[in-house]
Amino acid sequence: MITKKDIQNRIVEAVETVKRTNPMAGSITNTVTINFVANAQLAVGGSAAMVYLPDEGEFLAKAGGATYINMGTLLPVYEQTLPHTAKVLHEVHKPWVLDPVAVGIGSLRTRLLKQFKEYKPSIIRGNASEIMALAGLWGLDGGTEGSNARGVDSTDSVSEAKTAAVALAKWTGGAVAVSGETDLVTDGSVIVYSYGGSYYMQKITGAGCALGGVMAVYATVASPFIAALTGTAVFNLAASRAEKKAGGPGSFYVHFLDELYKATAADIANNPFEMEEA
Amino acid sequence: MITKKDIQNRIVEAVETVKRTNPMAGSITNTVTINFVANAQLAVGGSAAMVYLPDEGEFLAKAGGATYINMGTLLPVYEQTLPHTAKVLHEVHKPWVLDPVAVGIGSLRTRLLKQFKEYKPSIIRGNASEIMALAGLWGLDGGTEGSNARGVDSTDSVSEAKTAAVALAKWTGGAVAVSGETDLVTDGSVIVYSYGGSYYMQKITGAGCALGGVMAVYATVASPFIAALTGTAVFNLAASRAEKKAGGPGSFYVHFLDELYKATAADIANNPFEMEEA
Amino acid sequence: MITKKDIQNRIVEAVETVKRTNPMAGSITNTVTINFVANAQLAVGGSAAMVYLPDEGEFLAKAGGATYINMGTLLPVYEQTLPHTAKVLHEVHKPWVLDPVAVGIGSLRTRLLKQFKEYKPSIIRGNASEIMALAGLWGLDGGTEGSNARGVDSTDSVSEAKTAAVALAKWTGGAVAVSGETDLVTDGSVIVYSYGGSYYMQKITGAGCALGGVMAVYATVASPFIAALTGTAVFNLAASRAEKKAGGPGSFYVHFLDELYKATAADIANNPFEMEEA
Repeated sequence: MITKKDIQNRIVEAVETVKRTNPMAGSITNTVTINFVANAQLAVGGSAAMVYLPDEGEFLAKAGGATYINMGTLLPVYEQTLPHTAKVLHEVHKPWVLDPVAVGIGSLRTRLLKQFKEYKPSIIRGNASEIMALAGLWGLDGGTEGSNARGVDSTDSVSEAKTAAVALAKWTGGAVAVSGETDLVTDGSVIVYSYGGSYYMQKITGAGCALGGVMAVYATVASPFIAALTGTAVFNLAASRAEKKAGGPGSFYVHFLDELYKATAADIANNPFEMEEA
Repeated sequence: MITKKDIQNRIVEAVETVKRTNPMAGSITNTVTINFVANAQLAVGGSAAMVYLPDEGEFLAKAGGATYINMGTLLPVYEQTLPHTAKVLHEVHKPWVLDPVAVGIGSLRTRLLKQFKEYKPSIIRGNASEIMALAGLWGLDGGTEGSNARGVDSTDSVSEAKTAAVALAKWTGGAVAVSGETDLVTDGSVIVYSYGGSYYMQKITGAGCALGGVMAVYATVASPFIAALTGTAVFNLAASRAEKKAGGPGSFYVHFLDELYKATAADIANNPFEMEEA
Repeated sequence: MITKKDIQNRIVEAVETVKRTNPMAGSITNTVTINFVANAQLAVGGSAAMVYLPDEGEFLAKAGGATYINMGTLLPVYEQTLPHTAKVLHEVHKPWVLDPVAVGIGSLRTRLLKQFKEYKPSIIRGNASEIMALAGLWGLDGGTEGSNARGVDSTDSVSEAKTAAVALAKWTGGAVAVSGETDLVTDGSVIVYSYGGSYYMQKITGAGCALGGVMAVYATVASPFIAALTGTAVFNLAASRAEKKAGGPGSFYVHFLDELYKATAADIANNPFEMEEA
């Protein structure tokens, strides 16, 4: 099994490479938090670009180092754009992050998420309810039939999603990240628990979306598993630092972006985590 | 007539119930201020979810405790989504808040707003020009023909909109809130004037939209009249507190979200207001 | 040639007229930074309104003093809305600002940008790669074939875009602004270099978009050249002031909006700049 020290070294390398090379990760993401996604990607050292149209999705898939696809606030054109972009990403072997926001709401969302099974997203990031519902939709272990998600919120705990997360990672050959009080990241054989974060992360909209976008930035320079771990660690670190300075969710958001920007590679690698075999 | 003390007790109950139960209020709202709407809903203790597609509007209408429909930045799909969602809300007797932003601009907006008459929004929130134009569109007392709104801004004063507000509330059987220097809230028989707020509310975009979204959160646990009053009171309180700490509109926004979050039920109930019979 | 003192007097007049009259400038702009555009327009004293539909674009074109058209995050309806709105603006002789974001990505963007040539945008604002690519698309001097833009980022320097900027300004009879470390603004005969700004402007999303929106506000009361200069100067001033107070990109954004709001006409006119003949 990979050692803690190995993981930390690879996190350091991912963070430093991003800060040095300013890699571009395109996104197709929801209108609620699209600004937060872009600003978080810039804060860690990446470059952002967002589109809606099918041929623009293809362009970014090929031009960017990785792509972030978030299922919030679907528009009619997504019916063309999302499967086409995911197919291109799969064909050209570019990493991509899937955020199955609000799985279970509406027929288009369900249809699109089913189509994504064959395009094997490199990283899947969601809350526990979303991860379990996606595993269910794809007929994998640990999945739930239908979704326990309440709108965009989870009603399940991270530990309940462990089986589903491992099954999804084994299917895709990539990584799965389950966001919650303690975050879980797995590549299907190792499970990492990442600590930190803040209560305020639930009190601002888009923390999960921004995390998915930042994972895509790291995926331009690191493996899906290391990219998912690095994103999770920098978010947990920045959130716990921001909480100490915040007087409420408004100032928390401001400090959080500042701390994302200021976090060094060593700080991120040293953010507390534990490992176990899957 | 309901007493001031009654109103205050019900405001306290609404605020505390929301903080305790984290109720979900879905929204179909404009892209300019959608992030502010969600963050304001979270700050007062609610949960937010935004959609664009017809069947997703129906899903949220049924799953949420109340729904917020804001007419800014209409997209083509709104032609299907908005009437369908409003119809469902009316049929399943779920409260909903209508924000007739920019009434008078474009043919689709006019057509949709006319359709809403029969679906009787539980709360209508707008500036004076919007309220008077909507009453005109629905053929009610106090209405203006066409709109005096200049883009999204009012050119009329709150007191000029009193007749229209009362007529709209009598028609819907719900509440109407007119935003301005002093805010007016009526259920068609009682008129409440709510004081406070800040000059900066005009200097940031979306204060009205965020208020509509927060009223929807309170409408999940209180009557339309109390929900509209509670939203108005917490906004007036938070804005006047934030203004004291702000150095401009950027920092005002940050402090405003912090103060929304920190405001206690007692503080909100004690925000100054006066009453009269309609 | 116009003197420095003349320019400064006209900047003072533009700033004061906007603060006094609160003019409305409508926008059709991307979902990533639409909130920043509106808040920047409000901060300098203007009024904002955003739309997507063709007849609403026409309404704003006629009702507003100027219009801002930004090509980011194109939606399918833009195929109707953008050419129609640009045509109306040209026909009714209203100033408009074109921001050719991400020129080179996708077929619709290219088609729309080609159509805009005949509607002669009063101000064109972009980074160096965008300005050179647009000149190329329109068959003008200094243009590049295809685009060197990487997503939304420039890979060329401002000085490399000088010929293209002058050629575009001569074609439109308006002004062209090239954003970069030192900004270049030209009316085709005079070139102004504006100093200031901040490194953080690259670390938040939408600084360029917000600048385009603010130029539209000033274009409601001043010539395209003076409007472009005034917008550039207030951004450079506010950014350099905000940088001194910021602890990262999150707090920079907040201070930047505060400083936009607080900047006086004299401060803006005195922001350092140099002139040369084109």
